[in-house]
Amino acid sequence: MQPAFLTRPWLDAVREEFERYLADKISGMTGVSAELHQAMQYALLGGGKRLRACLMFAVGDAVGTAPAALMDAASAMEAMHAYSLVHDDLPCMDNDVLRRGKPTCHVKFGEATALLAGDALQTTAFQWVLESSLLADSIRLQQAAILAAAAGAQGMANGQAIDLTHVGRPMTLDQLKHMHARKTGDLILAAVRMASASRSGLSSQMQSGLEDYAKTLGLAYQVIDDILDVESTSEQLGKTSGKDALSNKPTMVSLMGLSEAKQLLANLRSTALKACERCGVDERHPMAILVDLITDRKS
Amino acid sequence: MQPAFLTRPWLDAVREEFERYLADKISGMTGVSAELHQAMQYALLGGGKRLRACLMFAVGDAVGTAPAALMDAASAMEAMHAYSLVHDDLPCMDNDVLRRGKPTCHVKFGEATALLAGDALQTTAFQWVLESSLLADSIRLQQAAILAAAAGAQGMANGQAIDLTHVGRPMTLDQLKHMHARKTGDLILAAVRMASASRSGLSSQMQSGLEDYAKTLGLAYQVIDDILDVESTSEQLGKTSGKDALSNKPTMVSLMGLSEAKQLLANLRSTALKACERCGVDERHPMAILVDLITDRKS
Repeated sequence: MQPAFLTRPWLDAVREEFERYLADKISGMTGVSAELHQAMQYALLGGGKRLRACLMFAVGDAVGTAPAALMDAASAMEAMHAYSLVHDDLPCMDNDVLRRGKPTCHVKFGEATALLAGDALQTTAFQWVLESSLLADSIRLQQAAILAAAAGAQGMANGQAIDLTHVGRPMTLDQLKHMHARKTGDLILAAVRMASASRSGLSSQMQSGLEDYAKTLGLAYQVIDDILDVESTSEQLGKTSGKDALSNKPTMVSLMGLSEAKQLLANLRSTALKACERCGVDERHPMAILVDLITDRKS
Repeated sequence: MQPAFLTRPWLDAVREEFERYLADKISGMTGVSAELHQAMQYALLGGGKRLRACLMFAVGDAVGTAPAALMDAASAMEAMHAYSLVHDDLPCMDNDVLRRGKPTCHVKFGEATALLAGDALQTTAFQWVLESSLLADSIRLQQAAILAAAAGAQGMANGQAIDLTHVGRPMTLDQLKHMHARKTGDLILAAVRMASASRSGLSSQMQSGLEDYAKTLGLAYQVIDDILDVESTSEQLGKTSGKDALSNKPTMVSLMGLSEAKQLLANLRSTALKACERCGVDERHPMAILVDLITDRKS
């Protein structure tokens, strides 16, 4: 299957279309109490980069699935991500007050409503995949299972738990990588897998290329996050910067050093671009453009 | 389809088998950090009555599905219920310290781990339905969608949100019933629907009988809860009693009066038993026995 060779404007257009789709989807939910509904919309529509959704559309394109067919699955992915941020920001977790340049959900709506909004966003994620009419039953079942495995006690939630366990305790580089693979990597991998699950019969080269692409990007995402935490202001990030250093949390930068972390990032970029080649897409394809967007991001 | 006419010992045996199944299932999860895993097990295996699971087995029997085929779906249902209790007990919600006669999850493991355990139990619920090998793909997809719709922003989480909105504010009886229908009724209804989804081609009499049975039991469950809150001690209940009156929360008893609430409960019991008849089961069937277990319960 020959993927379309598309450039950055395609990605921007798809993201804009998705943003409208997502806004309509969440605002169109009926039978939700006003306060809960507002908190869910605030958390979900707060101006995120939609990295995970864009990954799904880019990979979808590479395997021959149009963005329109992946709108619900991408909405689910972003709802799952939004839930994790709301709960991660709560006072008993990171106790953060700033997210995407705005007050965090619990600062705006109170802790109880933020807790519920996070809870409900997780459920909504599953609802959206499971109730979608855009893809066949068997594909949605697979996508929902991928999402559950990535978000749960063996994935994202486990990453958070590992993080908690190590507060104030040293961590090796391997332990740190393992924590991030669970905390952020698994959901990024799930985005790629959910998109590729929309097509059956992919070649083993394509499949392994997609897995490497996703895992490499997941790690790169964290490395750049840790670099930004050191090099950027809160204003640039839209969230509190320098927190990790202040709280003495181990990061890729603190364990490797800044220049080594930057070198690692460059290596990961090149590995991810090679994985794109194995997926049969060149450097103009959205999958490759996303590699640059992630490794060059400023916030 | 002629359901087996079985009695109380059948229900007890199935519940015991389920309890073992559930304990094996949660303890057998690999790749979960020790602290998170312990908190999840503590919350899930804390000696609950397994009412929702038993409802699934009883309804399964009535439609011709053996308990063995519903073990994963029932495990999912209990995981979903357990998550809701853990989060409901958190300091920012009900701030409760006692559950099933033991310290609540956050008292035992701290707030952050309890939050994560609740989050992960919700995800686990979906994982267990979606990954089950006990039922056909199409049935599991349906069951997961039923579970999501019942637990989310239009169901259980919405009930919690309505509850929050009305703290310290009066409520009409209709509003109270609506809140309980979301908070507890929807999950009970989902238990019945997930079990009946295991069979296709049910008669419309059976289908409407099952819906009435579930809705009636859901309300009865809350009425007896409110009666027990007035009439029992914390020791009898295994959770803090008299809390609603203390916090000036509207209950079925405070809005109707105690004797009227008891009369309503008697009426609901008789409605539920009539619904059993419409489902083709008599008073010796587990479905009918559960009506008595719920309306006569002491804790």
